[in-house]
Amino acid sequence: MENNKFEKIESIRVEALDKILGIPFKVLDDGFVRVVDYMGSDQSIVQAARVSYGKGTKKKSQDRGLIRYLMRHRHSTPFEMCEIKLHVRVPMDCWRQWIRHRTANINEYSTRYSIAIDSAQTTNPEEWRIQSTSNMQGSSGFLRSEIGYQLSNEENELHEMARKVYNHRIDFGIAREQARKDLPLSTYTEAYWKIDLHNLLHFLELRMDSHAQLEIRKYAETIGKEIVKNWVPLTWEAFDEYRLNSMYFSGNEIKIINLINSNKIDDALKIASSLGWLEKREDGSLKQNLERTEFEEKLEALNSIKPWK
Amino acid sequence: MENNKFEKIESIRVEALDKILGIPFKVLDDGFVRVVDYMGSDQSIVQAARVSYGKGTKKKSQDRGLIRYLMRHRHSTPFEMCEIKLHVRVPMDCWRQWIRHRTANINEYSTRYSIAIDSAQTTNPEEWRIQSTSNMQGSSGFLRSEIGYQLSNEENELHEMARKVYNHRIDFGIAREQARKDLPLSTYTEAYWKIDLHNLLHFLELRMDSHAQLEIRKYAETIGKEIVKNWVPLTWEAFDEYRLNSMYFSGNEIKIINLINSNKIDDALKIASSLGWLEKREDGSLKQNLERTEFEEKLEALNSIKPWK
Amino acid sequence: MENNKFEKIESIRVEALDKILGIPFKVLDDGFVRVVDYMGSDQSIVQAARVSYGKGTKKKSQDRGLIRYLMRHRHSTPFEMCEIKLHVRVPMDCWRQWIRHRTANINEYSTRYSIAIDSAQTTNPEEWRIQSTSNMQGSSGFLRSEIGYQLSNEENELHEMARKVYNHRIDFGIAREQARKDLPLSTYTEAYWKIDLHNLLHFLELRMDSHAQLEIRKYAETIGKEIVKNWVPLTWEAFDEYRLNSMYFSGNEIKIINLINSNKIDDALKIASSLGWLEKREDGSLKQNLERTEFEEKLEALNSIKPWK
Amino acid sequence: MENNKFEKIESIRVEALDKILGIPFKVLDDGFVRVVDYMGSDQSIVQAARVSYGKGTKKKSQDRGLIRYLMRHRHSTPFEMCEIKLHVRVPMDCWRQWIRHRTANINEYSTRYSIAIDSAQTTNPEEWRIQSTSNMQGSSGFLRSEIGYQLSNEENELHEMARKVYNHRIDFGIAREQARKDLPLSTYTEAYWKIDLHNLLHFLELRMDSHAQLEIRKYAETIGKEIVKNWVPLTWEAFDEYRLNSMYFSGNEIKIINLINSNKIDDALKIASSLGWLEKREDGSLKQNLERTEFEEKLEALNSIKPWK
Repeated sequence: MENNKFEKIESIRVEALDKILGIPFKVLDDGFVRVVDYMGSDQSIVQAARVSYGKGTKKKSQDRGLIRYLMRHRHSTPFEMCEIKLHVRVPMDCWRQWIRHRTANINEYSTRYSIAIDSAQTTNPEEWRIQSTSNMQGSSGFLRSEIGYQLSNEENELHEMARKVYNHRIDFGIAREQARKDLPLSTYTEAYWKIDLHNLLHFLELRMDSHAQLEIRKYAETIGKEIVKNWVPLTWEAFDEYRLNSMYFSGNEIKIINLINSNKIDDALKIASSLGWLEKREDGSLKQNLERTEFEEKLEALNSIKPWK
Repeated sequence: MENNKFEKIESIRVEALDKILGIPFKVLDDGFVRVVDYMGSDQSIVQAARVSYGKGTKKKSQDRGLIRYLMRHRHSTPFEMCEIKLHVRVPMDCWRQWIRHRTANINEYSTRYSIAIDSAQTTNPEEWRIQSTSNMQGSSGFLRSEIGYQLSNEENELHEMARKVYNHRIDFGIAREQARKDLPLSTYTEAYWKIDLHNLLHFLELRMDSHAQLEIRKYAETIGKEIVKNWVPLTWEAFDEYRLNSMYFSGNEIKIINLINSNKIDDALKIASSLGWLEKREDGSLKQNLERTEFEEKLEALNSIKPWK
Repeated sequence: MENNKFEKIESIRVEALDKILGIPFKVLDDGFVRVVDYMGSDQSIVQAARVSYGKGTKKKSQDRGLIRYLMRHRHSTPFEMCEIKLHVRVPMDCWRQWIRHRTANINEYSTRYSIAIDSAQTTNPEEWRIQSTSNMQGSSGFLRSEIGYQLSNEENELHEMARKVYNHRIDFGIAREQARKDLPLSTYTEAYWKIDLHNLLHFLELRMDSHAQLEIRKYAETIGKEIVKNWVPLTWEAFDEYRLNSMYFSGNEIKIINLINSNKIDDALKIASSLGWLEKREDGSLKQNLERTEFEEKLEALNSIKPWK
Repeated sequence: MENNKFEKIESIRVEALDKILGIPFKVLDDGFVRVVDYMGSDQSIVQAARVSYGKGTKKKSQDRGLIRYLMRHRHSTPFEMCEIKLHVRVPMDCWRQWIRHRTANINEYSTRYSIAIDSAQTTNPEEWRIQSTSNMQGSSGFLRSEIGYQLSNEENELHEMARKVYNHRIDFGIAREQARKDLPLSTYTEAYWKIDLHNLLHFLELRMDSHAQLEIRKYAETIGKEIVKNWVPLTWEAFDEYRLNSMYFSGNEIKIINLINSNKIDDALKIASSLGWLEKREDGSLKQNLERTEFEEKLEALNSIKPWK
């Protein structure tokens, strides 16, 4: 390589993202996400990957294939070459989950320095979710709205009382850092949140998942479908294919499917049995087994028939 | 170096820390910190530093000097060789600040999975802090306790109402992840928090500082004085000397002190003036200037006389 | 939870690991790996996971199931609660790859401070690997040893000359930091390397893979099979099942298998075609397509028949 | 805050940096640094800091004061809101130090995939540096050039032999990953290196320091003075004042200076003595003591007279 081969260049811009820069996408009753700034594009990912191979830029038609290759084989460093900065408004309860992702840069609105934002996430009568019985940390379906009305009224009263207490303290000259201590977790906060594309995709994979809590899932879906999709469309397509809709099989699961396809059902049952999947109750029915249940769901997705009853 | 020079070794243990392993130190009204496990000691820091120099273990008497040298010159990697795991119980409001330190490993009690801990930080009548006027994000002094009683009563009512609403939701079968949304920020949470010594000292430097909020400062002081001091006494001594009690001077501040000591007051004033420190009001008095004020405090610590009035 | 329920505890020890503490496992011609210290065990992972669920310790027999669940669902934080510190001796060329893993703590032998280690990785005549033609960044098979002798001789001469030049510079009083500049990349270095179990497993997944370079693979295999397996046997078993031997399928791959199993070959071909997998050469044969080739290998593992020729 | 207050915005651009985008700055004999892309400016730092305070944009004249305040008080998060991507060409020996900074994103030229760059750092006869006697890991002065000629000739021969051996292996079809193993550490590599401004400044503080090795110092100086200074001029000015030219004093050093200024020399000597600074040899002269020597240098910078002889 020769130094003198390099010429002045321009910063990479993405028209579809420039169009929505600064414009808030509404999330929940009073939250939002908006793009403040960004660096890079699909093209930057390709460019970075090709540094590794010491080659000049190739035909644009090959970029898609390269990005899919990188995504498929989890070559993450080229995706780290893109960066985005969002301005978000989120209930603190949701934000508590959000900032567990430690790879982002954050500047949050300070309720030590300023009066707390006078807004808390509210729940409509038909939005109260029922505790899932199958999933200890999930919800399933909604309460009927008659009771929902009652709960929404209570929520409203609690919000009013909490705000009254907060204001009372402030009026008495209590330090903001202490006055805020009993605000409800549903109180909105705001932050600048900056992250590279690789880590953002990891965040989206976890938080767009059906097991993620509804609130953060709504933010993740907005970021994914309104922002990332416009920013890096080739990457988004590959992410959708290889992450969001992909499925894992363990070593033994592959062996069992192989044996089913080879019509060696007995051998398949032997492996399942060795994994403890086939223990029976006194009445002869199979005991509950989480690993087996999860595998049965995968078999169903493949339209493959399970070799036990 | 020869491979065969290595023999079987033992895990490094620190008797003073082993003695308090698992025992909770109380913090605030209902919080605590306790050590769950740890790895390393002062000796491990020395050992790691000496890997870099390719030398065998030296006299114990030189360890103190080496650790002070490493601390003074901010050679941080040897301190990263020690690791500690704490179990903490903290109000969520305080925990929100705590986890902004992104370098720790965390497992937090899940209020999606389990019923929220039935305890919130309470404030005694004489503990209500007044908003500082000089420091936008601080407090200064306490409210007189007559009004304090009123505020503590209100706090109690709010806690009761919030818990009643929470229980009500749970009784109606609302998902725990949604039921918790209006718990007060003062609700206690628990977590395992694991961090290396270098990053722990950084946490302590920031959170033992007088500008840190009182609540987190109490935790930091407990961790520092009850735990770290027992764990790595030589490191703690060096940290106390070179971090907690240190002071730093900018390039221009050093020049000004040099000129004061050289009795070249006019030249000192010229620099101060060029920094915009000496602008005057119409009545001839100096305008407020934060940089100058901070420097004057440093001069006082040195018992050096400021060259302006 | 009540504070007073906590009693003094002991640091968690693993007998099988304590037995090999400090003892070097030889890797390559003159490298090694040995455990210097560690924190935690399978039991600590379970303990941390259960903090999240707010429950006391359960029956030991359930630990295995919980660890498998955590591994399967990529709940990584409990694995971060274990930490290990290794002392390694590695050729610098290999070390260059190693430290790309940014999540570890490192203290490396300093060739600025000390004379460079007088040892470089050598290659036996039968160990010269041939450039793979199918994999641009891999090797495949060995050169016949007659030529290997020649190359090993050349290697030896080069090592001798490089060391002579280095010593010459040192003798003339050249600074060690400059004298070392032309040492071969194969020169051995040593380091303390400390990492948590989650990140160590990620390292092992990448570096035990058949696509990893042989040298680093040997280190990874030693760490995995001699150390981690002894340290956290339940975790190792789950890792082996769900990571090392797992396979993942993209959204479209699952659809195609489903259609094959449903005997809807035409629909399967349509999807394959839309992915660009079935483009043909003039002679009617399928064009090379990396995605299709990789999928065919997966079909083979399942003993499923590909629906194209 | 109201959502509808936000309008479309533009990505922040810095004219002085746009001018040099893509243009390489030469470093060493055959290295370079060039900016590939960036995000943010001084203005973004101010913007992020003000999110924390919940206030709109203020007068530009106050930005400088705010940035100096943030730098002085080590409020690092607003500086993390700026990001830069560099393309660098560096000798591997220097790169080994460079990538110890774990907070950057990296894509490096792959010598597994491609033929190694045919260039190694060379040393002119007058550039051979002498080992420092006072600083174990530094150099001091240059060798006289007669001997320098000899060493430069040897360097040239070694480079030629190493390249010949490398080419020989490649010609025999040896895998590139193995063929490269004996290239000299001085061989150039290239990489994309992306980092946020806070971490970049930390890198510069360490690597522009006079104790940093000359080679990496040249890169750091180029990045600082040619790039960062043009990118974020207010931040650079504050960094220069509060980091590059600042000086630390420990708790005891401050006490001693205070006592000197108070003319309480005996008390000052007592503290120095308790620190072990005043131990004497048999002839009555002070023993060497690194802490004392470093303090004496600070006293000299302040033009303060040391209270011992």
